[in-house]
Amino acid sequence: MAASEKALMLHEQWNGKISTESKCEIKTREDLALAYTPGVAEPCKVIAKEPDSAYKYTIKSNTVAVVSDGSAVLGLGNIGPLAAMPVMEGKAVLFKEFGGVNAFPICLDTQDTEEIIKTVVNIAPAFGGINLEDISAPRCFEIETRLKELLDIPVFHDDQHGTAIVVLAGIINSLKVTGKNKEDCRVVVNGAGSAGIAISKLLLTYGFKHLMLCDKCGIISKNTEGLNYMQKSMTEVTNLEGKQGSLADAMKGADIFVGVSAPGIVTADMVKSMNKDAIIFAMANPVPEIMPDVAKEAGAKVVGTGRSDFPNQVNNVVAFPGIFKGALEGRAKQITEKMKLAAAEAIAGLVDKDRLSEEFILPEAFDKRVVEAVSNAVRENIGNN
Amino acid sequence: MAASEKALMLHEQWNGKISTESKCEIKTREDLALAYTPGVAEPCKVIAKEPDSAYKYTIKSNTVAVVSDGSAVLGLGNIGPLAAMPVMEGKAVLFKEFGGVNAFPICLDTQDTEEIIKTVVNIAPAFGGINLEDISAPRCFEIETRLKELLDIPVFHDDQHGTAIVVLAGIINSLKVTGKNKEDCRVVVNGAGSAGIAISKLLLTYGFKHLMLCDKCGIISKNTEGLNYMQKSMTEVTNLEGKQGSLADAMKGADIFVGVSAPGIVTADMVKSMNKDAIIFAMANPVPEIMPDVAKEAGAKVVGTGRSDFPNQVNNVVAFPGIFKGALEGRAKQITEKMKLAAAEAIAGLVDKDRLSEEFILPEAFDKRVVEAVSNAVRENIGNN
Repeated sequence: MAASEKALMLHEQWNGKISTESKCEIKTREDLALAYTPGVAEPCKVIAKEPDSAYKYTIKSNTVAVVSDGSAVLGLGNIGPLAAMPVMEGKAVLFKEFGGVNAFPICLDTQDTEEIIKTVVNIAPAFGGINLEDISAPRCFEIETRLKELLDIPVFHDDQHGTAIVVLAGIINSLKVTGKNKEDCRVVVNGAGSAGIAISKLLLTYGFKHLMLCDKCGIISKNTEGLNYMQKSMTEVTNLEGKQGSLADAMKGADIFVGVSAPGIVTADMVKSMNKDAIIFAMANPVPEIMPDVAKEAGAKVVGTGRSDFPNQVNNVVAFPGIFKGALEGRAKQITEKMKLAAAEAIAGLVDKDRLSEEFILPEAFDKRVVEAVSNAVRENIGNN
Repeated sequence: MAASEKALMLHEQWNGKISTESKCEIKTREDLALAYTPGVAEPCKVIAKEPDSAYKYTIKSNTVAVVSDGSAVLGLGNIGPLAAMPVMEGKAVLFKEFGGVNAFPICLDTQDTEEIIKTVVNIAPAFGGINLEDISAPRCFEIETRLKELLDIPVFHDDQHGTAIVVLAGIINSLKVTGKNKEDCRVVVNGAGSAGIAISKLLLTYGFKHLMLCDKCGIISKNTEGLNYMQKSMTEVTNLEGKQGSLADAMKGADIFVGVSAPGIVTADMVKSMNKDAIIFAMANPVPEIMPDVAKEAGAKVVGTGRSDFPNQVNNVVAFPGIFKGALEGRAKQITEKMKLAAAEAIAGLVDKDRLSEEFILPEAFDKRVVEAVSNAVRENIGNN
């Protein structure tokens, strides 16, 4: 049976990948009187007086909403909220299985920015955190920014920051493998959507100095027309030399290429034009911007992709479960740049020196140490809420 | 330890009464590739083409939202969404434990009717049904009515209809015990809020002809001032003789009293003024409108309350889990009057002839037959969606 057929069959068997379960036994009238009325009035009264005690008496302490409007789902595009459900349920499964965090899919029957913001604010009381997922750019930027202002629980767009954190972790280790230096590296990020912009921002925060952001139009500069407000703001901090040209032009002399763009758009010649020991993260899915063997042959030293059948898979699952676990445990009100950097360092740090190589720059998804390392790093770096 | 102390201690131990659990094992890369990307794309694509198949591949088939704005919680009043959480989690527990139905608390940070409606519509894709809970009247009427128009999944305000169904079930059996006849009975319902109005409506639908609705102001008639739109509409179908006066006046010569009002407001003299073999449902909580022994001594034949420490407890838990189970299994688009009547008949029918007596008119909450009987009755009476 083909994998796709098997996946469909299993989804029918599961008939929903998560369930809600009771943590309290209800076998007798007394059980009922304690977990429900009249006993339940006690925690209600305490919370009404001290709202913070909701973290003590309710699921808020360990529950995340996985929120999507279905506008940018996987490689499938704008398939809407109902069709996005299997992905959001899958995400909820990963939250629980990898992070021990309860998560529930909230698939929104609206793609209007204001309505999404309003709806998430309205349902926030039950949740300790909001994980935004598969919302198209540039709406995702405004939605995240506004929700962060309006809510006192962490709001995290995983497509942006989860991806950025794992890419940064991979790059931290790639620098070790290649002996390159972040201050001197020339970085090209191709794809100026939510992931590409978030990656660029985090790399700059980490300390990279020379970064060019490219999109279908080529190198993005202050002269580029038709940019959205977030892309425009990126021209203040990227491409400081004001270069113009194609992706191929950008890659000449670059040290690092990060692609969150389209299959096969990077050629061997483009890799050859890069600096020695180039680092390539080609994360278009399922077909990367350039296949690892081609990139290697053209001189790349480290190649990562989004795929599990090649070395160096960039997989968000090493980030988001631990990030929310740590943020919830530490009662963070936001997930800050400092916490993201700490998470990336923690992920990178899990690759032991004796295993670190151009073929092994990131810990594996099923490495049991990951969630603890990431959640500890995040929790220890809260502080500034 | 006092029960209230024990309840608080247990709520702290539980730290949230429900959890979300994965139904699929994620132990290997292959598991991950089937439950998440890339395999998850298959059910997404199918649902995008055939929206109905969401019932086959997602939790929509068996998941209910327990929605509250915290405006009318138990006897606690308007304590807000956060403090309402323990109740809504408790409701979710009962859905699962009694009905096998997944349920998740949605506590809304708004008490604006339009915003509540909009929010519930926006989050509806993940759910197969909406259970409204503890929303104050008269907003609850409009919210329910409008949501029923806007959504193609069942919307059910349990405080109204769950209560009405169980009261009707109790009254059906009380008629058997007393030999009274629904067409001739004079019924007084005291408390013209959401429960009182829903009870009145369902009793009229069932076939009662003479019903007076009372509130703090006494008997509600067309001349009563300050009524909300739903109370006003009730004057078209209740108190057809246009009586005016106090609750005591209403109860003279009545056969059935149903109280969803305030502790201790019914006196022995008022019961004495009723017809022979009076039926009393005194459901104010925790202190009923009249204590059962007092009512009995004054001549009442059957007395029910909301309490588990007296005979004839009127407990919604015999209704809502089976109602949603049946509605979800049968893919009902609404819960109609016919389904509600069938549920009440099914509940009443579970009290075997040899057990039926003035002290035993309703099945017990933990009677395992209840959920099957109710869900079957509901499912068999869908038809008109």
